Amino acid sequence: VSVQPLRVGVIGAGTVGREVIRAFLDRSPRLAPPDGAPLLLTAVAEKFTERAIASGIPESLLTDAPAHMIASGDVDIVVETMGGAEPARTLISAALSTGKSVVTANKHVIAHFGPELERLARETGATLRFEAAVGGGIPLLGPIALDLAANRISRVRGIVNGTTNFILTAMAREGRDYAEVLAEAQARGYAEADPTADVEGLDALNKLVILARLAFGAWIEPAAVGNRPGMTTGAQGAPGITGVTAGDVASLAAEGRILRLIATTRLAEDGAIEASVVPTAVPAGSSFGRCDGVLNRVEVDGVPVGRVAFEGPGAGGPAAAAAVLSDLVAIARGVGSTWAGLPAAVERSALAVRPVAAECVAAPSGACYPVGD
Amino acid sequence: VSVQPLRVGVIGAGTVGREVIRAFLDRSPRLAPPDGAPLLLTAVAEKFTERAIASGIPESLLTDAPAHMIASGDVDIVVETMGGAEPARTLISAALSTGKSVVTANKHVIAHFGPELERLARETGATLRFEAAVGGGIPLLGPIALDLAANRISRVRGIVNGTTNFILTAMAREGRDYAEVLAEAQARGYAEADPTADVEGLDALNKLVILARLAFGAWIEPAAVGNRPGMTTGAQGAPGITGVTAGDVASLAAEGRILRLIATTRLAEDGAIEASVVPTAVPAGSSFGRCDGVLNRVEVDGVPVGRVAFEGPGAGGPAAAAAVLSDLVAIARGVGSTWAGLPAAVERSALAVRPVAAECVAAPSGACYPVGD
Repeated sequence: VSVQPLRVGVIGAGTVGREVIRAFLDRSPRLAPPDGAPLLLTAVAEKFTERAIASGIPESLLTDAPAHMIASGDVDIVVETMGGAEPARTLISAALSTGKSVVTANKHVIAHFGPELERLARETGATLRFEAAVGGGIPLLGPIALDLAANRISRVRGIVNGTTNFILTAMAREGRDYAEVLAEAQARGYAEADPTADVEGLDALNKLVILARLAFGAWIEPAAVGNRPGMTTGAQGAPGITGVTAGDVASLAAEGRILRLIATTRLAEDGAIEASVVPTAVPAGSSFGRCDGVLNRVEVDGVPVGRVAFEGPGAGGPAAAAAVLSDLVAIARGVGSTWAGLPAAVERSALAVRPVAAECVAAPSGACYPVGD
Repeated sequence: VSVQPLRVGVIGAGTVGREVIRAFLDRSPRLAPPDGAPLLLTAVAEKFTERAIASGIPESLLTDAPAHMIASGDVDIVVETMGGAEPARTLISAALSTGKSVVTANKHVIAHFGPELERLARETGATLRFEAAVGGGIPLLGPIALDLAANRISRVRGIVNGTTNFILTAMAREGRDYAEVLAEAQARGYAEADPTADVEGLDALNKLVILARLAFGAWIEPAAVGNRPGMTTGAQGAPGITGVTAGDVASLAAEGRILRLIATTRLAEDGAIEASVVPTAVPAGSSFGRCDGVLNRVEVDGVPVGRVAFEGPGAGGPAAAAAVLSDLVAIARGVGSTWAGLPAAVERSALAVRPVAAECVAAPSGACYPVGD
C-alpha cells in the first residue's frame, strides 16, 4: 500500500533545526518507518535566509514567514526549533488549533504554556510531542509515559542542566570560584552570554515541570518550584548556583560531599506536589556525585519497578535533533502526543505545589544546602 | 464512546504471573488507558490450581488447560509467564497463529525462536511484546526501538544478569571463592537450585540476542554468541563466570579492576555482528564497576545521540510484572509489537556473527579476561 507522505515544515534553522534538516537532506532511511507514513521535508522557515542557504538548505524550501507556512496548508507537521517564548508559543498554538502536529524542543513554552497547549491539542485532536525538551537525546519522557505506565511514580529527580553541572564539576575539581569558572564556560561555549536561565536554575525548572506532568499528571506552575537554597539565617539564598562559593565547595568536599544542581519533584503524603531545583550536597562517590561535566542523569522511583535511572549527554544539537526525529517517526506511526495514554492533566488551580522539604547542611557562605544521596 | 474491552488470559501464576493477576484483581486504574481499550482479566491457566486458589485467584477464572484457553476464542491477549522452552513456545505460536496478541517475559523462547515468532506475527498481523524479557522493569526495548529510532546504534553492552552480578560483587568484596558465594546466593534465593543458565551466561546471552534484534535488526543465533573468556594458552576458558577464582579477583583488584559479566554486541567494520557474554575486567570506579549486587545497567552507543545508559533492578516479580502490564497497555493503545516501527528482521542465514574481539588481561587461573571501560 502506498501511503500519503506527511509534509514537515521546520521553523528555525539553528543548532537543532539544522541537524533535523540535514537528516532529511541526507535521506535518512529512519524517516520512512515501515509501518507509518513517510516523512517529507517541504518547508523551512528561517529569519536569516542567506545564512541558511549558505549552510546548504535549498532555497526552494526556504521562507521567512513561519506564520504563513502554518496557515498555508502546505505542511502537516510543524517542527519548532527556534526556542524562546514568542513567537514560538503563538506559532505552536496556531499549528495545533488547525489540527497540525507539532514537535518542539522548547522547554520554556511547554513548561509555561503546557496547560493551554494540551487543552488545545486535545480539542482539535492534534499531536504535540516534546521529547527533546528534557535530557536532549536521552529517552525520558516517552519511557515515563509509555514504558513505565504500569507503575505508580513517587519521585523524579535528576541533573538536567549541563551548563551548571559543568560549572559545579570544575569548581569542585579546581577549587576555583563561581565567577571565574562561569567566565571560562562562556568562553568555551558551555554557557551563554546571558547565563541567567541556566545558572539561576530556570532551565532545569522548566524541565522539572515537564517531567512532573508525565510522572504525576499535572502541570505545576513554574513559579511554584523552589530554586533557592535556604540560609542558616532562615532567609532564602541566591537563585540556582549563583550563590555557591569556593569556600562552600571546599567545606563540603572535606565531608566527602559535592554540590549538584538537582531538580526534584515528588508526591507528598498530603497529596501536594513538591518541586525544587537547588544545589544539593550529595556524596562525591554517589551516582549523582560522579555524574560529571555536561552529562545528565534522571532517576525515577516507582512502585513496583523500584528505582530506574537514565543517563547521557543532555545537550547538543545532534542529540536533540535525534529526539526531534524520533518524535517525527512516532507521529508517522500514529503513536500520538508525548502524554498519549495518560489522562488529561489536572488543572493548575486544583494543585497544591510547594518546594521540597529536606534536611540541609550549613556551608561557610551561610547557605544551607539540602542533603542528597 | 464505549470500547469493547480486550480479554486477557494469563498462562502461569508464578512469581511474575501472580503480580500481573493481582494488578487486575486490585483494579489498577492504569489498566484502562484513556485512549485505548480497557483490559479485562478473563482467564488464568495454571497447572497447580489449588495453590492458585489459595493465593487468592478466583476459581471462576482458573483453568489447567492453556491450549484450550487459547483455542477457545475467549481471550484476545495471551500473557505467557510460565517460562522455559516448552510448552511456552508452542502456546505462544498457537496464539500468534490465530492473530491473538501475546505478551511474554520469556527470554529463552524469544531469543531462540524469535525469527519464527516474528515471521508468524507479521503474517497474521498479531502483536508480540516482550519488554519484561530484558532488564525486568527497566524500560529498555521500547526506548531502543521507538525513542532512539532516529539514531544509528553501533554498540549495546550491559550487565543484564543479577545472579552473576551478585556473585561477582560478593567475591570482590569478601575475597571468597566462587563455589562458596554461589552456595550462599542459592541459600538466599538469588540463585536457582540449578544455576547453570545464570552462571554459564546463557540467560544474559538470551537477553543480548533480544537487544541485538532491536538495535541491529537481526536475530543472531544464540549459539554464535561467545560465553567463554580466552586462556593464556590460547584455549577457551570455562563458560560464563564458572571459571573465575578468588585468585583472579584479587589479582585484578590489585590493579584497580573488578570482574563484571558484560554482555556486548556491536557492529564490526566489515558488517559482521560481534556478540559475547564474558567476565570483563572493568575499572572498579567505573559505572559498570560500581553497578553492584542485583542491579542491571545497559549502555547504548549511537549516532548522533552519544552514549545513553539505563539502570535499575533487573529482576523480581513485581518489576517484571510492571513491564508486562506496560506491554498490555501498549497493546490496548495500538502501539504494536516491541519491534514496531523497525523493518522486518534480517534472516539468520544471511548473518555473519562472531564473538567480540577485545584486548585481555591475564589472571592467575590462566584465564585472559577482556578489558572494559
